[in-house]
Amino acid sequence: MTPGRFLTLEGGEGAGKSTQLRRLAAVLADRGLDVVVTREPGGSEGAEAIRSLLMDGAADRWSARAEALLFAAARADHIERLIRPALDRGAWVLCDRYVDSTRAYQGAQGIDDAAIMSLHRFGSQGLLPDRTLVLRIDVEEGARRAEARDAGALDRFAQRGRDFHESVAAAFARIAAGEPERVRLIDASATPQVVTDRLLAAISDLLP
Amino acid sequence: MTPGRFLTLEGGEGAGKSTQLRRLAAVLADRGLDVVVTREPGGSEGAEAIRSLLMDGAADRWSARAEALLFAAARADHIERLIRPALDRGAWVLCDRYVDSTRAYQGAQGIDDAAIMSLHRFGSQGLLPDRTLVLRIDVEEGARRAEARDAGALDRFAQRGRDFHESVAAAFARIAAGEPERVRLIDASATPQVVTDRLLAAISDLLP
Ligand SMILES: Nc1ncnc2c1ncn2[C@@H]1O[C@H](COP(=O)(O)OP(=O)(O)OP(=O)(O)O)[C@@H](O)[C@H]1O
Ligand SMILES: Nc1ncnc2c1ncn2[C@@H]1O[C@H](COP(=O)(O)OP(=O)(O)OP(=O)(O)O)[C@@H](O)[C@H]1O
Ligand SMILES: [Mg+2]
Ligand SMILES: [Mg+2]
Repeated sequence: MTPGRFLTLEGGEGAGKSTQLRRLAAVLADRGLDVVVTREPGGSEGAEAIRSLLMDGAADRWSARAEALLFAAARADHIERLIRPALDRGAWVLCDRYVDSTRAYQGAQGIDDAAIMSLHRFGSQGLLPDRTLVLRIDVEEGARRAEARDAGALDRFAQRGRDFHESVAAAFARIAAGEPERVRLIDASATPQVVTDRLLAAISDLLP
Repeated sequence: MTPGRFLTLEGGEGAGKSTQLRRLAAVLADRGLDVVVTREPGGSEGAEAIRSLLMDGAADRWSARAEALLFAAARADHIERLIRPALDRGAWVLCDRYVDSTRAYQGAQGIDDAAIMSLHRFGSQGLLPDRTLVLRIDVEEGARRAEARDAGALDRFAQRGRDFHESVAAAFARIAAGEPERVRLIDASATPQVVTDRLLAAISDLLP
């Protein structure tokens, strides 16, 4: 256990993770907490270099297994260089996607969940968040939100079809069912303010 | 089992791996074999991109664990895109370094051999060469050869000290002792021609 708190936001494309991360960070900082905002893949110099390999290029650039190894390498670097030091000094670390995204996305491509967790133990001693908030939104609605934002430019993951995104949503639901204390499903179809209130309610037991 | 043959050259810095790979490839091609020459980390487009992350920058750029994951990712890509297809069509694949280098170098940094082999099984179904030739040379002599070649420009691995390279040499010896049929230690302190003859003798049972 570390003196800090580690929160992650998860969910499919366009669910509002990045938007809510900013809002949540502002609320927590207002309460006087030391807040560190970060993202995956990336968040440290080495991990951001790996992120470029993962996000750019053709959808079939990497096999699902090579991809899972690259995510694990980026995460190991991110945790060692940024997350652990921040938690050790007592900060609240808010991270946009984390290992549950790897489980959901690589899992939707047929990679065994136990294998992904075993890579996570190897690279990062299996560090899990104190709370993981999964934003739930209809796949079509998420795609509309992301398209409106990106004006047609889609990364390697967003390029995949509806079936894939439905499998990802199902994987997130399975993870939440398996770890109900850590992982909470949040209905993200409301206004940003309402969603932020729901997120705050879902971490109220952690707040000082 | 594939119709092709997979040979790897291993050993410490300056032992003569790249020199002998070229010489061996020439001899095998002269005998009419379809020869594919490649190297690790790298050998395919994705793996070469990972190679840049691994070879450039400060010696402490990556933790040993992040490094092991990056090597496994590069190897998975290399095998899927280049090595397997070549073996499947019956080629002789000659590779300059492979998983035994990861075992020796990451092992010398305290990573458990079983963990490295488990990453190799995850990423690459544990593919092992038909024969691995480990070139043995005194660490000082290897350093002299490499320095004369590179005129002072050392990569992240060559920057390490003598003790590290002695541990690597010891790790290669342990691997050979554990898998005597696959892995052969070759005295590489002689002239290039004599070393090539020793390598050919060590693969004579595989030659058509
Ligand atoms: N509650 C909401 N209602 C309507 N639109 C929203 C809501 N939350 C976010 N948006 C808008 O939807 C788009 C996607 O939001 P955001 O970038 O936060 O999603 P994301 O989950 O981070 O997506 P990605 O997975 O692509 O990173 C943005 O343009 C954002 O302004
Ligand atoms: N048998 C030999 N006797 C003397 N010099 C040699 C011999 N073999 C190779 N060399 C020279 O030693 C230097 C290192 O050889 P080479 O590049 O083949 O080693 P390597 O094992 O591939 O090194 P690295 O681990 O740095 O890639 C080169 O300049 C090469 O010409
Ligand atoms: Mg986002
Ligand atoms: Mg070489």
